[in-house]
Amino acid sequence: MEKKKPLILISNDDGVWAKGIKELIRFLRPLGEIVVMAPDAARSGSGCALSVTRPVCYEWLSEEPGVKVFSCNGTPVDCIKLACSAVLDREPDLIAGGINHGDNSGSNVHYSGTMGLVIEGCLKGIPSIGFSLCDHTPDADFRPLETYVRRITSVVLEYGLPSRTCLNVNFPRGEIKGVRVCEQAIGQWQKEWEPCPRGGGSNHFWLTGEFINTEPDNEKSDNWALANGYVAITPTTVDLTDYPFIDILKERL
Amino acid sequence: MEKKKPLILISNDDGVWAKGIKELIRFLRPLGEIVVMAPDAARSGSGCALSVTRPVCYEWLSEEPGVKVFSCNGTPVDCIKLACSAVLDREPDLIAGGINHGDNSGSNVHYSGTMGLVIEGCLKGIPSIGFSLCDHTPDADFRPLETYVRRITSVVLEYGLPSRTCLNVNFPRGEIKGVRVCEQAIGQWQKEWEPCPRGGGSNHFWLTGEFINTEPDNEKSDNWALANGYVAITPTTVDLTDYPFIDILKERL
Repeated sequence: MEKKKPLILISNDDGVWAKGIKELIRFLRPLGEIVVMAPDAARSGSGCALSVTRPVCYEWLSEEPGVKVFSCNGTPVDCIKLACSAVLDREPDLIAGGINHGDNSGSNVHYSGTMGLVIEGCLKGIPSIGFSLCDHTPDADFRPLETYVRRITSVVLEYGLPSRTCLNVNFPRGEIKGVRVCEQAIGQWQKEWEPCPRGGGSNHFWLTGEFINTEPDNEKSDNWALANGYVAITPTTVDLTDYPFIDILKERL
Repeated sequence: MEKKKPLILISNDDGVWAKGIKELIRFLRPLGEIVVMAPDAARSGSGCALSVTRPVCYEWLSEEPGVKVFSCNGTPVDCIKLACSAVLDREPDLIAGGINHGDNSGSNVHYSGTMGLVIEGCLKGIPSIGFSLCDHTPDADFRPLETYVRRITSVVLEYGLPSRTCLNVNFPRGEIKGVRVCEQAIGQWQKEWEPCPRGGGSNHFWLTGEFINTEPDNEKSDNWALANGYVAITPTTVDLTDYPFIDILKERL
């Protein structure tokens, strides 16, 4: 009996029409059977948000050999929940998010809808990887990423990942010098609001901001890797417990 | 010169009109000067979502000695960003989220808007605590929580927290047997979609589900504590790096 090809579920937060997801499908197609369930439009900055006050629906978009594409009116996390529980007839062997148009390194992991769907995959016990490129433009050039995306995905298909761990993979813009396995940089967003006056009032704002890496010399961080031309692979856990602090806190209470 | 009272910023994800936030204000009022910036309506399940495609605005609602209340049309994370960067004239000494109507223990920490705002506070370097009660009802009885909420907050005001750590505090419904410092339970949501047929089609769903604790006998977990009548305090880190896996992954790539 022929062994079934791995089932790879793909989603993103830029929407099913984004160039990044089309490129990801193209890159991963040789590695397995692809099903896409992605938002019907952009959902940037959705983190792990869920749709709790309205129904979620999906729609079949296209099918060609080895690639089925659906869109969904929910969040990236909804997409994974819906695909796994209501659409697919077997559990995916791998979930891939992206390729995001924009950087999801450092503390951006918390806000990213792409990493939201990857965290959801990991919570379901499925090896999951998020791919992002430090380039927001709609027609960003993803071609330099191809061999890296395929190689990293192959390694995860072969070895799996620890049950509570997923990967946050970020690519620098331009020439790639190599790959580094990194720590999540700690930094802060500053100058986060741009006034957006309305009717003479001053209480409307656009969210914006500038990310300040508070440890720019930490060569182990993902931000350092990206700033120096390396692919940053940050192993990311869904178990947020601060274990070392448990005993200290017990004494204080 | 009289020492300034601590400034406590309060928000939630059930909205500024929820009973839980009113009770939290009442509980914390003796400990400091209170400013509230909370969503103008419920934002349950928003995680760390941001408003990126529309402007965010806030509105002054009320003021009495020691308590100023604002509402905001954004997400819980927007509320914290807006209060800290555009409204307050000094940095808060503490951020408190809740009291949430419903359980945010275990992997719910990822979906919770209350924990989203607490994570945002922590990313800003401010000691932050999320409070939740395992009771969804709008008129839940928060009175048994009062002494615990005040005590935990006082300890954090006195000692602070590690710079990348916040607290996820969950209360059982009913009688409280004591307090336990816990690990985040690992579990899975199952039966997550309830069909919501429309026009004869079968592709609309309501999000629902049942949380299965996959380690029900782990007495260290927050789910165990809650199931056995204890307050569960889970120290929660915003640094998601899986450090032990870094070297293993380096060898595989």
